[in-house]
Amino acid sequence: MKKIYFILLSLLVGCLMASCHDDKGWSVVDGVIVFDTPQREAGQQSVLGLRVAPIENVRVGFIGLGMRGPSAVHRFTYLDNVEIKALCDLLPENVEKSQQILKNRSLPTASGYSGEEGWKELCQRDDIDLVYICTPWQKHVEMAVYAMEHGKHVAVEVPAATSLDECWALVNTAEKTQRHCMMLENCVYDFFELTTLNMAKHGLFGELLHAEGAYIHNLDPFWEAYQGNWRLAFNQAHRGDVYATHGLGPVCQLFDIHRGDKMNYLVSMDTKSVNGLKTAKKLMNADTFANADHTHTLIKTEQGRTIELQHNVYTPRPYNRLYQVTGSEGFANKYPIEGFVFEPKNLAESGVANHEDLSAHSFIPETARLQLMEQYKHPIALEIEDKAKEVGGHGGMDFIMDYRLIYCLHHGLPLDQDVYDAAEWSCIGALTAMSLEHNSAPVAVPDFTRGDWNKIDGYHHAMLAR
Amino acid sequence: MKKIYFILLSLLVGCLMASCHDDKGWSVVDGVIVFDTPQREAGQQSVLGLRVAPIENVRVGFIGLGMRGPSAVHRFTYLDNVEIKALCDLLPENVEKSQQILKNRSLPTASGYSGEEGWKELCQRDDIDLVYICTPWQKHVEMAVYAMEHGKHVAVEVPAATSLDECWALVNTAEKTQRHCMMLENCVYDFFELTTLNMAKHGLFGELLHAEGAYIHNLDPFWEAYQGNWRLAFNQAHRGDVYATHGLGPVCQLFDIHRGDKMNYLVSMDTKSVNGLKTAKKLMNADTFANADHTHTLIKTEQGRTIELQHNVYTPRPYNRLYQVTGSEGFANKYPIEGFVFEPKNLAESGVANHEDLSAHSFIPETARLQLMEQYKHPIALEIEDKAKEVGGHGGMDFIMDYRLIYCLHHGLPLDQDVYDAAEWSCIGALTAMSLEHNSAPVAVPDFTRGDWNKIDGYHHAMLAR
Repeated sequence: MKKIYFILLSLLVGCLMASCHDDKGWSVVDGVIVFDTPQREAGQQSVLGLRVAPIENVRVGFIGLGMRGPSAVHRFTYLDNVEIKALCDLLPENVEKSQQILKNRSLPTASGYSGEEGWKELCQRDDIDLVYICTPWQKHVEMAVYAMEHGKHVAVEVPAATSLDECWALVNTAEKTQRHCMMLENCVYDFFELTTLNMAKHGLFGELLHAEGAYIHNLDPFWEAYQGNWRLAFNQAHRGDVYATHGLGPVCQLFDIHRGDKMNYLVSMDTKSVNGLKTAKKLMNADTFANADHTHTLIKTEQGRTIELQHNVYTPRPYNRLYQVTGSEGFANKYPIEGFVFEPKNLAESGVANHEDLSAHSFIPETARLQLMEQYKHPIALEIEDKAKEVGGHGGMDFIMDYRLIYCLHHGLPLDQDVYDAAEWSCIGALTAMSLEHNSAPVAVPDFTRGDWNKIDGYHHAMLAR
Repeated sequence: MKKIYFILLSLLVGCLMASCHDDKGWSVVDGVIVFDTPQREAGQQSVLGLRVAPIENVRVGFIGLGMRGPSAVHRFTYLDNVEIKALCDLLPENVEKSQQILKNRSLPTASGYSGEEGWKELCQRDDIDLVYICTPWQKHVEMAVYAMEHGKHVAVEVPAATSLDECWALVNTAEKTQRHCMMLENCVYDFFELTTLNMAKHGLFGELLHAEGAYIHNLDPFWEAYQGNWRLAFNQAHRGDVYATHGLGPVCQLFDIHRGDKMNYLVSMDTKSVNGLKTAKKLMNADTFANADHTHTLIKTEQGRTIELQHNVYTPRPYNRLYQVTGSEGFANKYPIEGFVFEPKNLAESGVANHEDLSAHSFIPETARLQLMEQYKHPIALEIEDKAKEVGGHGGMDFIMDYRLIYCLHHGLPLDQDVYDAAEWSCIGALTAMSLEHNSAPVAVPDFTRGDWNKIDGYHHAMLAR
């Protein structure tokens, strides 16, 4: 009798799912919420490992000169074979301030654009190779898509997109236009992260099992700095980990995401909002606040690894991006103190003195840590670290990011972060919101490569052969 | 048309659930797996806040003298108005070793029991008030139930139980017999945890939002110390956070669990097993291993708080129980360095010098931390800390635990940890296994108080009025 119920039920669930499918854009498979994957349109091709012809002199236009933009303009003035052609912001006074940066560095004035439609004019120019977007999150995709459709490569601040539809819009447009679309995730270029990545590639951690990333940064004194209060307004309306890329980016490079591994599903859980709501009452006269004071996410990968993410921009805590790596033979910890643990045998070739006496239960001594940090310095850091520290930008990592973007464009190499990274790292906001609205139910992470996640053998920074 | 499908479906699901319910012992409600709550049997009454008549001289029998037992016997020799009446272990030589502890402390020899049934004889004595159980996890419930049924109060090592049925058996037996059943969770008595709990009760963290606990302890060199390899064998057969109480206990006291708040549901996610499997191959010739190298759990409470738990006893990492507390106005961190952050206004009455200059973005200076740790020392630590450090046992916390157990029995006070704590903290193993076997689906945490979770106003240690 039960069997008949089951069959009837299965049939009905099947009908129901099929019929609901088109309406809501997702279904439930083995208890996991799975969003539909749109079909590739005709003429659309994968941009995995995309190479375009080398661009000898990269001509750049900047959109968004309020917070992150001016420092990007400043850093670009230190890059060779780059031409800053155009500057755009909603407010003309911001354009003027960035013109002054060029002047201070004895560079020619760029074309200036402002107002609601200025950015479109910038994208329509035919003497620009790269559009560099530092506007509020809500504007990223509209601008990136428009720029690519006008033949430009795109670099766009984090998060690149704020919904699943936006993620797919970036991927589809990049695939249609065969343009680069790189998200400007700078934390993957921080020195500890680069060194640890290099150690991992050399097998010091054994098999990688678990890693953590976070954005824990008390923004209380900073909310009013965001033009028109856009950031608080966004958080007021959006539950979930809306700012996951700084924590997730470095972990995805470590775990070879869409280069041999992929994120399968996530679950998310959050606290009530106390401080967020208080701030929104004060600054927006709001009486609700969707974003939690603390949001927690777990992600499972195809290769049996796990990722933990945290988001908290509201409560008094020290700044913390976690970046913690657990392997079968080693461990790395960045906050609040940098430390490593290794199976002593893994240090046999390191030259670390008395490595056999080291314990697999405590951080290696400071002298050994400093020696290994030097020994396993990432090739990119070796190449550019002095100049990066001179130019600055979050201790140098921002400059390394710009340098790498331009390096790869100069040499016709695949960029360090492709459009699939941008989509994968940005989709966390929408997926966590879905999980949170369903009692922390598991939600599948879309495969934005549409089946190609295992075609590249591990994450690598493209470098010219030497 | 869809509406009809829905109604039909709902009816069928209803029938199906009703019919499956009795078979499998759980159902799915709003996507959450909910285990059935057994009915109280006739004559069974809540033991919330249980007080029994003061016991002037507490007569104790110990069962399990392999690992934790002998040090408990040693500590008990330092307690006043306690009589060690009986010692029991599977192996007679272990009983002899503990008799030697009594001799070294000039105390009379206790009655000795050994063999498979020795513990039953011990429980059957009529001159024992308290049975103290330090056997392998798998034996705890059988012994605790038998002891209570023979009129004894029980103290039992962690975890008290290893399945939901076992958790209910403890609760039901305590309710039937009106005996105390305290789990020996020692970490709630560690000095940092006690001080932080006291700070929280004084409002230094504002509203409590999120807390973390863990058992991260590389057991690689220790597996063979467990008699008959019982611990590795248990982990080989059990997926999930099988050892959650050290991390969870201190958090539950902080969050007033079943004293104003309750755990509603959890989700769990784990890595593949690499090191666990390797060890089991070597020591057990096993070719599978259920327990993951790293297991991660998130718990949501009724009051909108979250708890994170981690379990990893396999990979090279420094020992870490996390114990991290996030409040709306403060933050505490225990590992790898102890630190606090507070809104400066919360230190106004603390006497901390220049507290208004402190930042809500970084740990308070070491001098302020030490001053506050002294100022907010828990009353229990004030009372017994010197003696605890002299007697020892994990830096003194084990002695504080025993001292408190005997103090409350002497004075007829409710114990610091009741049987509902034992069940709540121990059930995590079974619940996480369920979540893990269902793609990290949410699983409801049973209310072992059966509706009384909001009847006690906050967690307190019972103390005689002075």
